[in-house]
This record gives sequence, structure tokens and C-alpha cells, in this order.
Amino acid sequence: MRKMLLLGIIAFSFNAFSNTDSTFIRKIYDTALVQGHAYENLRSLCKDIGARITGSAEAKMAVQWGKSILEQYELDKVYLQEIKVPHWERGTKEAAWLTDEKGKVYKLHIIALGGSVGTHGLIEGEVLQVESIEELEAMQPSQVEGKIIFFNRPFDQKMIQTFKAYGACVDQRWEGTNAASKLNAKGVVIRSMASSSDDHPHTGSMHYDEGVNPIPGAAISTNDADLLTKWLKKGKVILKMEMDCRIYPDQLSHNVIGELSGNKDDQIITFGGHLDSWDVGEGAHDDGAGIVQSIEALRILKDLGYEPNHTLRCVLFMNEENGNFGGKNYAKFAAEKKEKHLCAIETDRGGFLPLGFDVVGNEEQLAFVRSFMPLLKYYDLLKFNPGYGGVDISPLREYYPEMLQLGMSVNSQRYFDYHHSEADVFDAVNKRELELGAAAMAVIIYLVDQYL
Amino acid sequence: MRKMLLLGIIAFSFNAFSNTDSTFIRKIYDTALVQGHAYENLRSLCKDIGARITGSAEAKMAVQWGKSILEQYELDKVYLQEIKVPHWERGTKEAAWLTDEKGKVYKLHIIALGGSVGTHGLIEGEVLQVESIEELEAMQPSQVEGKIIFFNRPFDQKMIQTFKAYGACVDQRWEGTNAASKLNAKGVVIRSMASSSDDHPHTGSMHYDEGVNPIPGAAISTNDADLLTKWLKKGKVILKMEMDCRIYPDQLSHNVIGELSGNKDDQIITFGGHLDSWDVGEGAHDDGAGIVQSIEALRILKDLGYEPNHTLRCVLFMNEENGNFGGKNYAKFAAEKKEKHLCAIETDRGGFLPLGFDVVGNEEQLAFVRSFMPLLKYYDLLKFNPGYGGVDISPLREYYPEMLQLGMSVNSQRYFDYHHSEADVFDAVNKRELELGAAAMAVIIYLVDQYL
Repeated sequence: MRKMLLLGIIAFSFNAFSNTDSTFIRKIYDTALVQGHAYENLRSLCKDIGARITGSAEAKMAVQWGKSILEQYELDKVYLQEIKVPHWERGTKEAAWLTDEKGKVYKLHIIALGGSVGTHGLIEGEVLQVESIEELEAMQPSQVEGKIIFFNRPFDQKMIQTFKAYGACVDQRWEGTNAASKLNAKGVVIRSMASSSDDHPHTGSMHYDEGVNPIPGAAISTNDADLLTKWLKKGKVILKMEMDCRIYPDQLSHNVIGELSGNKDDQIITFGGHLDSWDVGEGAHDDGAGIVQSIEALRILKDLGYEPNHTLRCVLFMNEENGNFGGKNYAKFAAEKKEKHLCAIETDRGGFLPLGFDVVGNEEQLAFVRSFMPLLKYYDLLKFNPGYGGVDISPLREYYPEMLQLGMSVNSQRYFDYHHSEADVFDAVNKRELELGAAAMAVIIYLVDQYL
Repeated sequence: MRKMLLLGIIAFSFNAFSNTDSTFIRKIYDTALVQGHAYENLRSLCKDIGARITGSAEAKMAVQWGKSILEQYELDKVYLQEIKVPHWERGTKEAAWLTDEKGKVYKLHIIALGGSVGTHGLIEGEVLQVESIEELEAMQPSQVEGKIIFFNRPFDQKMIQTFKAYGACVDQRWEGTNAASKLNAKGVVIRSMASSSDDHPHTGSMHYDEGVNPIPGAAISTNDADLLTKWLKKGKVILKMEMDCRIYPDQLSHNVIGELSGNKDDQIITFGGHLDSWDVGEGAHDDGAGIVQSIEALRILKDLGYEPNHTLRCVLFMNEENGNFGGKNYAKFAAEKKEKHLCAIETDRGGFLPLGFDVVGNEEQLAFVRSFMPLLKYYDLLKFNPGYGGVDISPLREYYPEMLQLGMSVNSQRYFDYHHSEADVFDAVNKRELELGAAAMAVIIYLVDQYL
């Protein structure tokens, strides 16, 4: 062993944890793993309600479902927070075909992007493949006009964290139709934002800039994207597509809130996930898992007789997927009511093995959270790094810029196999991994409530 | 924040890592994730060979498969190591039924335990449920005689590490038939060693003590175990079963070995997994994953032009599941040839997200391995604790008691959903998780080769 010995003076701060803490944490895990409700609640949300896009009947049912579950746990308060939300529907037609120069035909696995306009009948155009918005914008209008633009920049498989790989290509989905429309393209298809090679297309949100002529946008499966690339290497390819998705007027909907009141002061610890999902699959990992974990965290603390110092507020946010009006309004209402907010915690990365928590805060806040690590390493919670809280809680930063935010960090390797696709179903969630996440949420809420 | 500030003098030792190390580690990961062979090799092992119990034609094919893959990578040496192995076959008949006092019948999901004798026709007996061998041994012979003993102690769901839960109940499978036979029971069924509730029965090894009358042993699914318990609460239950499994004379088989020779000395770093599997499913997680990861680790190091200091020896061990004659003989041959062994590393806990490595060694060896942590945390390898190396490499401890052993530690939450059952198939393995494990193996081999 070639090594060196170093003597150094290290300054570190720590919280004065007691045996009570470690005993209570053990009880939280025991309850989650042996008498857990999270898995059966997830089954109910996925099977009794199903996919629940904002504005749908299912989303309305999900609001009632969430309120009813929270009420059944006899919390101090359960209430709805009214918000206005967009209403987009996929419709019943969704099909697309490739044709090569010899007339060979292939039917694509396609899915409209959320927010897209329909095609108003069958449209067709020659396919123009690009790897980025910048590549498209550098082209002559004559190269683009009347074509269907195929954005094909894939996930970077080298990235260890799949959320980073997603972040590095999602601009194609969110902005691609705008760039294409400005050059008079007829439509857009994107390679699905997925790390796996399979036949599921993955939807997700897109938007139209003001003044832009709205052209339809859809995603094709990663396997189909590879096939299309191969065809394009051989010659001209025509893509025909029909979708009848539509945008309806905004609707009323709700965030669903359950609280245990604090004994010490009126400060609030917000935690939650989002109740809406896309309209395919069952919204199991995204974010049924976060919903049932947040409910379960509060249920466990309540059932263990825990009396919180601060108000523990579980929020089932509506409309994270296409607008985030649940999160934006929650933050706005909080500021208007001059609520005091101590911390916000989100779980929205799938019901996979929890690894720790991302920290949004300054150095001192990071050190505070890291001081919990000796208590948590036994539970394989080993990862406490600066990072991201979550979409739902991030609008709180505008009004409470110095507040600590935490995002539960989980094994991200499988998430984008399921994300926004028909594969995101209850059966893809492992019971113990889901329960460990619920326990981790309860534990971090407890520690923040005790020591912040 | 209630906290305290402490100033302390900390002594720590570290390896003098260079930028070369972190650059090379990055290259290993890039190769595994972008140009990986592990996933396609696993597909081939699972689909072209399939389940490969010791002594079967599939096991013979797997030996040829392993040799051929290693040869294709143009290593310095590829060879077989001849060993004698047991040969047990399940046969074609395997069925069991419950009947209650009213004559209600239920067909069980059953699987013979590996090594069990057959029933020689349909046998039947009243079911006697026990939770442990001790409980059975405390009974009067008259209570047990002629009965079929049902060992039903389940996985302890409270245990965070599922391997510990397995270890805490596997004695029922390994020893249960001996205890039951000594009290003249007719046969044994055990609750499957699984953390999940489902219909797959899970097999695994059992044995007969010398002089004990061999009675048949089988596992039933966890769902069926719960059903049987319910029936037993209502009254007497008769179990009928037929199995025609047989024990054949020992056979010749082989460990398969591939090496890159060391430049500095003749010390050996052994790493591997086991090539045999049980005869159900496809042996994908157990231990196809470990086999392809070990091969891939060596392939990556070779393809990156790495010239090792010590001999890097990849061993595909035969017969881990029912006898461990591959591991035992490998250790014995090494000692007989007076080989110098520096370190042994095993991957046999499924192709799941790698978390770190278990360390078998003294305090200094543990500190040595932990000194790698700053290099590895970016890759989410955060867990380096005293623990277990693996079944295949553990016989080396007899001859090289002071040698460092490492066992790759992975997310254990899903492993026992698949273990030794028909559910352990290629499709249950996630490509990126498998590849990250292959990279972690290559990295730890590289670091040990460089710094030990």
C-alpha cells in the first residue's frame, strides 16, 4: 500500500442526537416495512383511479381519493386549495407512418406531446433529422419549410445520474416545435426522452411561444428513432401522422392538503409530491409513489404518537406535469397569507431505492443536513449533496428564498424506462423500495422538525 | 439548529491518487455504459444457454460458452480447471395438493429443494406447521411421526439488508429435512425464502446428514404458505405430493479461467462469480450478472490498454449453488501450486445498482479500501463496510487467511423476489444497473492492482 499519513485539525459541527432519535427512527422503519400502507395506497391510486392528467375526470377523482385517504388518518386538518389549471386532451386518434422511396411502410409507436395541437386530418412531410435546436436554427428556411422535423439527440448514456441526461436533451421536447414552426415546418417528432431502447413512446410537456403558429408535436419510441435514422441514411423518408388532441379552456382543480399542527410555533414544514400524472400508464412512479410516500410519512408519525414542534403539512400538488399551477399557487397563497415556512421537502423521482436527499440551501444548511448522516447510514441513506428540491416546491423559493429545500434522491437508473409512458404502472414498483422511501421521508421530516 | 461545534485532531491515511486515476476511472465507466458487452453477453447466457444447474447439459454448454467468450477477448491465458461436482436432477413430476377436512382441494405452487430425494409415488401426510427447527425438536416423536412438516418462519421484513433476512431463515431449508427425518416425519415443505408475496416457489440447496433417512423436501410460494397457515387455523390439512427428483453419481465439470498477466510480479487478483445456476428461470441475477460483469471488467481493462502490475484472473466458478466444489477446489489448487494471492473479489448479489464493496480484512485493509471513497463517490459508490466476500472466494480464506477479500455490495431490495425461482430471467435485469456493476468491478480491480 502506497500511502501517506496526515494529521489535521478538522472543525465540524453536529447536532446533539439522543438515543431517542435512533430508537424513533428504527420505529419509523419498522412501521413502514411491517405495517406499511404505502403499497396498498399506491395500488388503489393506480388501479382505482388510474392515469390522471390535469383537467380529466380521473384527476377530479384523484383529488377526492387524496382527501378521503388523508381524512381517514384523522389528522388535525384536511382541506382543498382551489387553483386554475390547463385542460388538454389527447383525443382518440394517434397514428403515424413512415414511407421510404420504394414505398415501404412502417407504423410508428407514437404519442402526442402534452399541449400539442392536433393535425386536423392526416398530414405528411419529408423527415428532416436534427440533433439540436441550434442545428435547426442554423438552416435556411427553404431546407425546413413543409418538412417534419425529427429531433434525435439521445440520452447521454455516460451520465451516471439519468436526471442529468434527461435535462441535457429535454429542450428538444419543450422548445422544438417553436423552433420548427418559426421556419415553417409542418410538425415535429422527437426521440423519446428515455435511457432504454424499447418500443414505448414517452410523452411530456411542450409549449407554444406567443405569436408562433402552433404545429403538432409528438414523441416516437427510442427503437423507432433508431429505425428512422437508419432509413434516413438510405434516402428520403415521408412521415404521415394524425392526432386529434385539443386544448380546452382552463378548469378549476385543487391541491389536497393534510396537516398535523405544531406544538411549539406556527412555522410550517411542507412535504409532498404531485397528484396529477400523464394520461398513459398509471402514474405509478411519476408520481403516485411520491404521493403515497408523503401521505405515509405523515400517517406513520401520527400513528407513532409523534407530537410535532412545527406544523407538518403534506401537500398533494395538482398539475406538476403541464403548468405547475399547483406549486405556483401554493407558494403564492402561502406568501399572501404571510405563512411562516421552515422547510420544504419533495419526493418525485420514482418509488426506487432511496439514497439520501438533495439539499437546496447554503453551506450551513448543507452541513446541518449532513449532520444527520451518522443516524442514517445504517439505512443506506448515504448521499446528501447540493442539488434540486423538486418542481412543486421550487416556486416557494421566490417568496422564501432562504428556506431549506430537500428533494429525496433515489436510484435513478430505471426511472426513464417508465417515465411518461404506458410502462409506468403499479407492477413496476417494488414494495420494499417504496416503503423505504416512505420511511426516509418520515425520518427527514422528524429530524428537521426536531433540529431546525 | 441546536448544535455544537467541535475541534478535533483527526489522523487519516490516504493513497496518493493522481489525475490519471480519476481519468482512467471515467474511461472505464464510459466504456461500460456506451460500448458495454455485459448486457448482450447476459442475454446470450440466459437465452442461448438458459438455466444451468451443475451436472446438466446446460452447465456443460455454459463452460464452453464462458471459454469461448474469454477467448474472443484475446487475453493472455484462457483455460479450464477440472473439478468433480454433484449431479442432481429435478425430473419431470412435481406436484402437491392440500385437502381440508371438508374435502376442499388446492393445488400448491411447489418446487423440490435441490438435493432432495423423490417421493417414489404420491405420498401424503397431515401438515404440522412450525416456525423453527428448535420448535420441531422440542416436540414429542408421536406428534411428528408420519406428518409433513411445514417450516413457515418468514423473512423478517424489518431487516434493511435482505441478505440478513435470508440468513435468518435459511436454516429451515438447509437443515429442516434432517430435523424432520429424525422424528420420522414423511416429508418437508418450507415457505419460500423470499421477501415478496407472490406465487413463485423458490428452490435452493438442502442436505442430508449421514445416517439420516432421506425424506423429500420442497418449497411452496409465499402466497401458498399464507394460505396453508389460514387453512391450518381452521382444522386438519392433508398434503399430498409427488416429486421424482434423483441424485446421480458425481461428474466432471470445470471452472473457467481467463487471465491478463501481471508486469510487476506473480501475485494474483482473483475476481468472479458463479457460472452454474438453479434449474429454473434463467439464472440472470444469480449469477449470470456476476459472470458477465467479471468478464466485462477484464474486457474493459484489456480494451483500454491497461497493463496490470499483478495477474488479473477472472474465474467463472462452477457449482456454487449445491456444493461449492468450484470454489473449494480453486482454493485447494491455488495452495497446492503455491500461488501467491493478493486479493479476491466476488460479484454474486444480482445485477442491481452497485453501492460499494463489503470488506473482509483487518482494520488496515478496511482503511485501505475506504481510502478509495473520494474517487468513487461521484459514481454513487458510497458503502464500504466490513462484510462478506462471497461463497466462491471464501474457501481461499483457509489457505490465505490474511488476504483481502471484497464482495460487491448492491441494492438488495429486489434480489429475493427473483432468487432461485422462475422469475430470475434476463428481462428482470436493468441494462444500466448491470453495466454500472461491471464498471465498479473494473474500477476496484484497477485500484487494488495499483495500490495494494
